[in-house]
Amino acid sequence: MLVKLDTLKQTALTVLAHSGYPSDEAQTILDVLLYAQLRGNNQGIVKLIGAGMPRHPETQPIRIVRETKLSALLDGGRGAGMVAMRRAVDLAIEKARAHDVGIVGTNNTASSTGAIGYYAGIAAQAGLIAFAFSGSGEYVAMHGSYEPLFGTNPLAIAVPTTGESPIVFDMATSAIARFGIIEAQTAGRRIPPDVAVDGSGQPTTDPTAALAGAIRTFGGYKGAALAFMVEAFTHALVETTPTPEGKKTDWGNLVIAINPALLTDAETFKARVTALVVRAKATKKLLGVDEIMVPGERGNALLARVLAAGEVEIDDNLWAALSQKANASY
Amino acid sequence: MLVKLDTLKQTALTVLAHSGYPSDEAQTILDVLLYAQLRGNNQGIVKLIGAGMPRHPETQPIRIVRETKLSALLDGGRGAGMVAMRRAVDLAIEKARAHDVGIVGTNNTASSTGAIGYYAGIAAQAGLIAFAFSGSGEYVAMHGSYEPLFGTNPLAIAVPTTGESPIVFDMATSAIARFGIIEAQTAGRRIPPDVAVDGSGQPTTDPTAALAGAIRTFGGYKGAALAFMVEAFTHALVETTPTPEGKKTDWGNLVIAINPALLTDAETFKARVTALVVRAKATKKLLGVDEIMVPGERGNALLARVLAAGEVEIDDNLWAALSQKANASY
Repeated sequence: MLVKLDTLKQTALTVLAHSGYPSDEAQTILDVLLYAQLRGNNQGIVKLIGAGMPRHPETQPIRIVRETKLSALLDGGRGAGMVAMRRAVDLAIEKARAHDVGIVGTNNTASSTGAIGYYAGIAAQAGLIAFAFSGSGEYVAMHGSYEPLFGTNPLAIAVPTTGESPIVFDMATSAIARFGIIEAQTAGRRIPPDVAVDGSGQPTTDPTAALAGAIRTFGGYKGAALAFMVEAFTHALVETTPTPEGKKTDWGNLVIAINPALLTDAETFKARVTALVVRAKATKKLLGVDEIMVPGERGNALLARVLAAGEVEIDDNLWAALSQKANASY
Repeated sequence: MLVKLDTLKQTALTVLAHSGYPSDEAQTILDVLLYAQLRGNNQGIVKLIGAGMPRHPETQPIRIVRETKLSALLDGGRGAGMVAMRRAVDLAIEKARAHDVGIVGTNNTASSTGAIGYYAGIAAQAGLIAFAFSGSGEYVAMHGSYEPLFGTNPLAIAVPTTGESPIVFDMATSAIARFGIIEAQTAGRRIPPDVAVDGSGQPTTDPTAALAGAIRTFGGYKGAALAFMVEAFTHALVETTPTPEGKKTDWGNLVIAINPALLTDAETFKARVTALVVRAKATKKLLGVDEIMVPGERGNALLARVLAAGEVEIDDNLWAALSQKANASY
């Protein structure tokens, strides 16, 4: 159904307040969720329904536990991954502005950072080249395996352009995002074949069986290798705390921001990225292709239409679940 | 056929001498080629046959054209990409050792850097986290297009372990490496379906038609988005020189080396990466899978067997072509 943007925001903020978030944290989380929701990315308000993402009752303020001119490691204090990651990217930008490189990791959160293009995009809007990596629990199997080991381990890369929107590329290294499966479950849909196995290692299109089994990595062994590296960056490097058996008890994240002026004139870099976009879009199209789309373009176009209309199409079941949660008394 | 390692090295060095390389450059190039050849990677000695990789007659010494504590931009002087990239990684390591981050780009080369895991692996053996990106000419089409725009745009990521071998992940963002097509052409084989199109945009398994058409990116739009970012890093960022129409006249490369001690204890990082390898290999295997392999493991195992035997299996046609080139009088 079509939902007014203001209604969507108010409803989501109500659920976030019920979930225990103070208003500044709720606003950050809303920004991240809407970044995804309004671009047709499956990391949106689906995160608020069902168990949702309640604030941990013992959340502590975010703390810098290690710092150099170029880097910092943040203890997320059991708070929301989105709040810690937003702080991480702001700090990485600050360091990159002062010293050309900012590398900030977070640990001790256990909720998703959402669409990580959001964070990389903020750094690119500040004129920086940005990488973002997010870890999570055991959901995805290594290539050749059916035992969950990796998180969905998304990565984002963003570069600035001369226009308002940077080029932001954001992908899960899994064949499907975990919230893509939860979204299918909520909407009563099957998931595509070949993206998940059930608990005995058999391929499945049933989202419930997939959640009890393992998600596969995308693109065969290449995707698995990328997932491995994201795992190393978001757990080993940022000092998450595993059990003695190596199971995860918290999740980590990493942001790398680099000033392009280290290698070239920053404005020239933006102009050349923009020229590459123009060139890519002008190349000869395969039969049946209407338009060549650069990374993030489809989502930006959808966002522009939503903002112009002031309302957005949301799955009926999803909207019903969110509204019910907002209207429940606490 | 089986070829003695010493014979292989001597033959390749002879071809490199005939190709105009002084002995130090020839040794660097041989190292890169054997890194690939002895690991079963298609970036090996196939590069020396046919037109091969003759040294540009006007090769100038490599020159640092821009430098900060954390970064440098190298002008490759029209020399071999492998020689410039080896210099780039050595300089990136030096900067990362002194200042925790080293970011080095190269431009003004027009030959392939080969298996870029080689360069990332050297930095990881020095205890660093490494990224490497290599650009090249117009070979690969954007998702939805059949007009060559990108290079095969490989990227490598490497992390150190407690053992002798770092974990090195090295992949083309194209569905097949260009030298994989040339290797198939030399061996008289077809290429897999869905990796390339001919000059009119029709899928083809004929390597000759593919070389006249365009290679596709791997993994659908995700691979295309990665290819786009590698293109931005290896051309826009490192100041290669395009024609007014945007066509490439030289190729660029980028290495990023990061000291893990910025975020955690360096030895702990190595131990935790090694623990991740052990855990990944111990996960439950899908039916028909003998062993879970981590990135680079298959190539390292092949290398160990080759070194133990002192000889390596090489395609008959490839070896005949290389030997003929070594024996030709110049």
